[in-house]
Amino acid sequence: MRKIEHIGIAVQDLEESNALFAKLLGKTHFKTEIVAGEAVETSFFQVGETKVELLQATKPESAIAKYLEKKSPGVHHIAFDVEDILAEVARLKDEGFEILNETPKEGADNKLVVFLHPRSTHGVLVELCQERK
Amino acid sequence: MRKIEHIGIAVQDLEESNALFAKLLGKTHFKTEIVAGEAVETSFFQVGETKVELLQATKPESAIAKYLEKKSPGVHHIAFDVEDILAEVARLKDEGFEILNETPKEGADNKLVVFLHPRSTHGVLVELCQERK
Repeated sequence: MRKIEHIGIAVQDLEESNALFAKLLGKTHFKTEIVAGEAVETSFFQVGETKVELLQATKPESAIAKYLEKKSPGVHHIAFDVEDILAEVARLKDEGFEILNETPKEGADNKLVVFLHPRSTHGVLVELCQERK
Repeated sequence: MRKIEHIGIAVQDLEESNALFAKLLGKTHFKTEIVAGEAVETSFFQVGETKVELLQATKPESAIAKYLEKKSPGVHHIAFDVEDILAEVARLKDEGFEILNETPKEGADNKLVVFLHPRSTHGVLVELCQERK
């Protein structure tokens, strides 16, 4: 775990939240991206070495849509930058963490990503991120 | 907003969560601190330029105890490092954000802190942190 790669925030309306977070952070987002596999549209703000990622569902089946049905807008996940995602998955599995997808999948921003179930991390949805080569 | 100073995570049992997060992050916490004014005991882990702060209530009146009554353990707030907290409060108030305490108060880790109400930030409890001189 080298740094906090990003903080993922579930929002209802990406355009409105982009405007609000631009006021909050004093800068605009530097890109938006649709991650088709996750059915989300995302935007990114840079704050120091970490990004703030806003996530809006693009389909009712999206994990973000389901999250917002059960909970409310706000922090959805914390993503850690790792050098070797497969080695980290093996280490964390060995430590007893529940891995949601052992095979890394394509995330936003050119990353391979793996999620840990929040019931194994005291309620925090944890994402591991490795930069794709 | 220069960097993410820390991510605050509400936990039920600091000792258990310290052990769990040590496994997750691959390192132990570097200190614990009681913030009497907030009725919390905290521990800190360093990850890159950001800290992960675990928070356990020390009294039933603690904001963390109340949070855990209504919600569940997990990410509680995001803290941004600012150079001049009074200037940031003035700027954010002007932008329409709801300031919970306009007079900065003593936070953990030698900081002056101000909170923004999550109803003005699309659900994210935001803390501003300035290093105390």
